[in-house]
This record gives sequence, C-alpha cells and structure tokens, in this order.
Amino acid sequence: MAARRLDGTAVAARIREELAPKAAAFAARHGRPPGLGVVLAGSSAASEIYVRNKLKTVAEAGCKAALFRLDESASLDEALATVRSLNADDTIDGILVQSPLPAGMGKGAEQQVFDAVDPAKDVDGFHAINAGLLVQKRATLVACTPLGCIELLEREAIPIAGRHAVVIGRSDIVGKPMALLLLHRDATVTICHSRTTDLPAMARQADILVAAIGRPGFVTKAFVKPGATVIDVGINRLDTADDVARFFAEGSAKRRQFAEKGSVLIGDVHPEVEEVAGALTPVPGGVGPLTIAMVLRNTIAAAEARAQ
Amino acid sequence: MAARRLDGTAVAARIREELAPKAAAFAARHGRPPGLGVVLAGSSAASEIYVRNKLKTVAEAGCKAALFRLDESASLDEALATVRSLNADDTIDGILVQSPLPAGMGKGAEQQVFDAVDPAKDVDGFHAINAGLLVQKRATLVACTPLGCIELLEREAIPIAGRHAVVIGRSDIVGKPMALLLLHRDATVTICHSRTTDLPAMARQADILVAAIGRPGFVTKAFVKPGATVIDVGINRLDTADDVARFFAEGSAKRRQFAEKGSVLIGDVHPEVEEVAGALTPVPGGVGPLTIAMVLRNTIAAAEARAQ
Repeated sequence: MAARRLDGTAVAARIREELAPKAAAFAARHGRPPGLGVVLAGSSAASEIYVRNKLKTVAEAGCKAALFRLDESASLDEALATVRSLNADDTIDGILVQSPLPAGMGKGAEQQVFDAVDPAKDVDGFHAINAGLLVQKRATLVACTPLGCIELLEREAIPIAGRHAVVIGRSDIVGKPMALLLLHRDATVTICHSRTTDLPAMARQADILVAAIGRPGFVTKAFVKPGATVIDVGINRLDTADDVARFFAEGSAKRRQFAEKGSVLIGDVHPEVEEVAGALTPVPGGVGPLTIAMVLRNTIAAAEARAQ
Repeated sequence: MAARRLDGTAVAARIREELAPKAAAFAARHGRPPGLGVVLAGSSAASEIYVRNKLKTVAEAGCKAALFRLDESASLDEALATVRSLNADDTIDGILVQSPLPAGMGKGAEQQVFDAVDPAKDVDGFHAINAGLLVQKRATLVACTPLGCIELLEREAIPIAGRHAVVIGRSDIVGKPMALLLLHRDATVTICHSRTTDLPAMARQADILVAAIGRPGFVTKAFVKPGATVIDVGINRLDTADDVARFFAEGSAKRRQFAEKGSVLIGDVHPEVEEVAGALTPVPGGVGPLTIAMVLRNTIAAAEARAQ
C-alpha cells in the first residue's frame, strides 16, 4: 500500500492565502507593508533559487521584498555592515542572510553575521536569544524549516501528542528546534545522529520520523515502522545516471526527468519507504514550500511584534 | 547485586579543591575575588538551606558571597531593582535569584526577574540567551543541575557517546538542558514526560536514565534496564510514617532517620532500583552537592569571562 502523500505545495498555497490579508491589514494600519531584506553573498545556483523563491513568495503576499547582493569577494565587514544597515532600516521587519556565505569571509563568519541580526528581525530564528526563547516555549520567531514541518503535520491532522517522534539529525537550524517543537506539542522525542547505535532500530520506533541528515536516500524501509509518518527534510541533487539508477526504477517519473534535465532531486528518504510509511512528504513539493511559507509568516509576525 | 553508588559528595569535594586555586589566581590577578550575589525573597525553610549551602561553598573557595534579602511582602519592582543593582556592581560576577519568589509578586514575576539578570552574570544559565547558546553548543554559563550531572558522569567514567540516554522531565532548568548536554556528548537522547505513552518501556531502553520529575520514588525497577546508570535529580521530603513505610523497609537507615528527625529525603527514584541499576546517585549526597559545586564553577567562569 502506498503512503499518503503530504502535499506541501498545496498546504503552503493555503497558508499564503491566509497570510496575504494579514500583510494587507498591516499595511493599512501602518502605512507600509511588512518588509523582508535578504542578503545574498556570492553566486551559488542553489542559493539563487532559494532566494528568488523566498522573495517571490513574500512579494506576492503583498510584502516588501528587497535583495541585497554582495560579491563573492566581499569581506566579513561588508556583510556585517549590510546587516547593520538593515537593522537600522525601519521599513525592514525581517532579515535573512542566505547560507552559505563565501568561504573567503573566513571561518566563523556565518555565526558572526547571524549574531549581528537584530533578534526582533531574525526571521530565520538563528539568533541565540531566539533559540533560547524556543527552549523556553516563548519564541516569536522560530527557524522556518522545523516550523514548516510542524505546520504540515498539524494541517494534515497527524497526531503529535503522546506519539513517539524520532528526529535524525541534530543541526541548530533543523534537528534541535524540530525536537523542541515536537516536545512542546507533547510528543516523546528521540534525537538520533551519526553516533547513534543501531539507528534503523531506533528510527523504527517512530510514529513520526523526521529525516534531516543531508544524505540522499539514507532512510530506507528498515528505518520505518509500517504506518509511520515520515517527514523528509533533505534536498539532494543526483546528477549521474548511476546514482539515479540506485534509487529509481526503470520507467519511473524520476528516470524520465533525469533523461530530460540531466539531474533529479531526492530527499534523505529512500523511495522504497513509500511502500511502508503511512504518510510521507515528497521531494520536491514537501517540506520545501512550507519552509518558504514560514519565511512569509515570520516576516509578518516580526512586523506585527515590532509595531506593538 | 547492589548498584555502584555515585558519590556526589566526594566528587563535589574534589571539584571544590580544584576550583579554590582558580579563585585565588583570579583574585591575585584582579585585586578582588570572584563575587556571587544571591537574592532571597521571603523565607522558605528549603530555600534558606539551599542558599546557605551555596553561599558557604562559594565563600569557602575564596570567593565573595553576598546575600541580598527581600521581605516576603516585597514587590516585583523591588526584586528587579535588586537585580539591577547587582548587574551594576562590578565586584559581583554571578547573580542567583532563589526560586520560588513570593506568590505576591504576581504571575510571571520569576520570568521577569530572571530576564533582568545580566546574561554575563547569569550563573544559573536561565537567561534566554544562555539557553540559546547552549542549544548552539557555545555556552559559557549552563544551568547548574544538569551541568553537575554531566560532571558526575564524566568523573565517574560512565560512557556517554553512542549510548542511549533517557531524560524523564522536560523543565527549562533541568530536563531540556540535560538533554542538550547529553546530545552534545554524542548520546542518543530521548525526552519523556507525563504525556509519554508507556513510560516504563521507554525508560527501560536507557543506558543512562535521568529522573527529574519531582515525584517521590516514581521511577521503579520496571523503568530500569539491568546495569543502567540512574541519575536521580529529585529531592522530595517524606514526613509521615505511612509515606516512609511505602518506600523503605523496616530496620533500614531511612526508617531510623525518620524516627529521629520526623522526616527523610527521597529522590524521584524508588529505593528498589538499587537492585537492578549498574550505578545510581543517592539522595541526598548525589546530584545536590554537584549542583552547588557548579554554582562555584560558574561564578569563577563568569568572573574570568567578564575580566577578558
């Protein structure tokens, strides 16, 4: 039996429809729309796509969406100066710094730049104070990807309270906030990672399994209890025929897509999981659109909080 | 076979011996010792004992230890003013506000007072920014009880990496920071709580089981895998003969103690767990002395960080 497909694209569209009137109401009350400033340094193809999607979503909902570009050769000081000018700009409510920053800015540059963002405008929820407020269950701005996963679970009426959620991955921006959000909704939560002993057995306990590892097709059937809900946070690109053949059967849509485009996307979850999971997010079209919808939601939330 | 007893009193004594020279070195370098200010509002017998023990430990290690008392009837503004004066006092490196504050200060008073503490002096690690820095694995000041538990595990050479740790309890000051500290030492971590389905079965998976619930003798043999390490964070007082008889056998030391004093302490772990655990912290004399040693450690750490 095939898993129910959790359609992130459709859910995100509904969220955007709900948020547009809020953006309009803010603009009517305050004489200006909520504003998002995105800092993009250098030119990675993936970053260009992410940034374009975020700006487009925010603009289409009636917000201001402004891009601030820095050269690949820009210094850390230039990045910090850009963030500070956005902090000082009263028409900007949310600031995103697209990761990764150019390697030339030096080790630890990203942390310094994230730390420089005004916590009240930190729509990524990366600032230490926002991470701490999340721990204390009183955050206004929470990291967009885990927030989007929760939103998807709730809107798809997947029960969380009393269920066992297993999160594979312990990053600051997905794994740890995801675990806290699930915990605050009364799930029993296990965090697994590369050092976990017998990871498949641990994952197999999950009623809700969240994969946020960054390894294509890593989570196989052996990781999944029949009927479990599987949230696939990974977005990995396959660009060789061999890699595609490892994961996708002949005649499948992904094989055709690869033949046409020369690459396909795959999550951290192996396609075979569809045979055992109860519900599953596709890649693309699962978590990704929710993440972007949460950028919009956080921008409006930041605007409303700042205006109070 | 009886569990190995993890002697918190002895470990804490060693830590204090190691820290005293650091306090002396700080005083020699800076012309003043590290300083701790404790705010105690009202007069609960338990709070008086905790505060006295903290001040004594810190003073005996060569630090300044100052008590700031407020009446039971003191207002929230008075508590905030006291904290602000300690923030401004350059001879004070660490500030503790003893919980609970008098109920008369109003709901949410405690959070407001904790939030008012200068994060650089927040030796309890309760401030949102310190909670967030812990999430991001770059905290200077971490909540004393979970920090003490980790210190005890490490000094007793109990392996953490790759082990399954189960934390029962999800408070901001014990459960959640404990889970993060274990995770950062490469344990697979599960957080359980009152809404967990089949809590004994979940707990029985643990190589390291941390009980931080606040219910006397709640964790029975059914919760414990043979050979597991059990860390008992609870401190509960039994003051009726019936309660004591429920947990302690006739002729036991606790029964004699009750006959003499009219009350005995018990943790969140049932005494019968001693029969199955591999190692176990007693109550009293387990986690408690470590918590107090960590107040001293954090005071010196705060002094050193502020002096840089």
